[in-house]
Amino acid sequence: MKLQQSSQESPQRNIRLVLEYDGSNYVGWQRQINGISIQEKVEEALAVQLGTPVRVTAAGRTDAGVHALGQVVNFHTSSELTPRAIHRGAIRHLPRDITIVAADEVPVTFNARRDARLRWYRFHILNRSIAPAVGANFLTHVPFPLNPDKMGEAAARFEGHHDFSAFRAVTCTAVRTDLTMQRPGIRLLPDGLIIMDFRCRSFLQNMVRIMAGTIVACGRGRLAATEISEMLKTGKRRNEAVTLPPNGLFLYRVHYTGED
Amino acid sequence: MKLQQSSQESPQRNIRLVLEYDGSNYVGWQRQINGISIQEKVEEALAVQLGTPVRVTAAGRTDAGVHALGQVVNFHTSSELTPRAIHRGAIRHLPRDITIVAADEVPVTFNARRDARLRWYRFHILNRSIAPAVGANFLTHVPFPLNPDKMGEAAARFEGHHDFSAFRAVTCTAVRTDLTMQRPGIRLLPDGLIIMDFRCRSFLQNMVRIMAGTIVACGRGRLAATEISEMLKTGKRRNEAVTLPPNGLFLYRVHYTGED
Repeated sequence: MKLQQSSQESPQRNIRLVLEYDGSNYVGWQRQINGISIQEKVEEALAVQLGTPVRVTAAGRTDAGVHALGQVVNFHTSSELTPRAIHRGAIRHLPRDITIVAADEVPVTFNARRDARLRWYRFHILNRSIAPAVGANFLTHVPFPLNPDKMGEAAARFEGHHDFSAFRAVTCTAVRTDLTMQRPGIRLLPDGLIIMDFRCRSFLQNMVRIMAGTIVACGRGRLAATEISEMLKTGKRRNEAVTLPPNGLFLYRVHYTGED
Repeated sequence: MKLQQSSQESPQRNIRLVLEYDGSNYVGWQRQINGISIQEKVEEALAVQLGTPVRVTAAGRTDAGVHALGQVVNFHTSSELTPRAIHRGAIRHLPRDITIVAADEVPVTFNARRDARLRWYRFHILNRSIAPAVGANFLTHVPFPLNPDKMGEAAARFEGHHDFSAFRAVTCTAVRTDLTMQRPGIRLLPDGLIIMDFRCRSFLQNMVRIMAGTIVACGRGRLAATEISEMLKTGKRRNEAVTLPPNGLFLYRVHYTGED
């Protein structure tokens, strides 16, 4: 068996990569039969560079249309190339909308998914009447006026330890739904740009898009902040708490134990 | 004569539009025989909406690959539609990467090009070793370390009334080359993003891209800020003062007399 042989020949090393990608043209991070995934593009590039099949483990399984500025993956290899050589080599085999921003060697037990201490997602909203012509793939357009105070009140309701059952896709299969959420950050920038930051150890399926949609519903006056606490208690989502489109969403950073 | 006839039939009105566009897929603002221009897309959309040929005058003739968040144009029409109706109608005939963000009626003598009091261009630089995978069309990548103090010193040298002959394309045909430049603004944002702001009544051909390239050359240590003053005096450009690619450049705003 090939894997046994190679592990006898040379000790397995564990390489961590930080990835940036524009998810617009992919079915999402994870391999799927119905389209091209970012995972397969990354694994193909590494396989070409290392001359052997590679399987990577990612911190976040981003959906179709979701982007990353700091996705973290790891993979085991018996290659003796330095992380820098792997980085510089693999980057040349990637399409223009996927890149590797950093690479290092980590302990052989490190797992990018299991060991993540904090996942940080960022949501870009363009709040003005006219849909964007510049950067439309990176913005979710909200044409209704939004009240910043109401959005701030909404965000505060998510802070702390809660059962987030109401804030996930119906297809979500996670067993544990209780999570400790940092207070979502909301910044109003010039030209109608709103940036929301969501930080938690892990997230349920579609959870960031639903939380962002809930905060927008509150900012629009269609939902009261108190109703967020109610949804967290009952586990039942109100219709107003919509799932926003994926194109404003970025996996921004992933933190691991021992990092600040 | 057609123009006389139509002005006898109904008084000409003058409509001003603020345009936003992603210039990535166009030969630039101005109509050209060798490709599709933003101007022809805008004029076609207005012609469909108004049922008659339309010729627009723009504040800035942006090059191929240059974007706009606040290009201003005006056109004369005998249509009795409100600016809002023209806006909402024409927007539906534009491609996804061009839109109209505002429309109003202005005095019949208003000319978007001649009457502009201030043009404000913005240049986005991504300063890190790895080329961007996200938003590459909207960023100019500079992989060399840049010294912010040196860039600030360089920017200061451009402030004031100077002959900018050294800072234009060889194909530039402008007769007047003396301009009064505001001090270029330089902001360092997280993740290696640098935003430069250039504000002046008018600019010569390629001038913003050359000024940005000159500031980058200073930040890199290839050119001293004193040499900018020398180039402004002699009218001769140093080789280090390169023209940066267009993809980081935006026409951000145009101001007119009577606006703040």
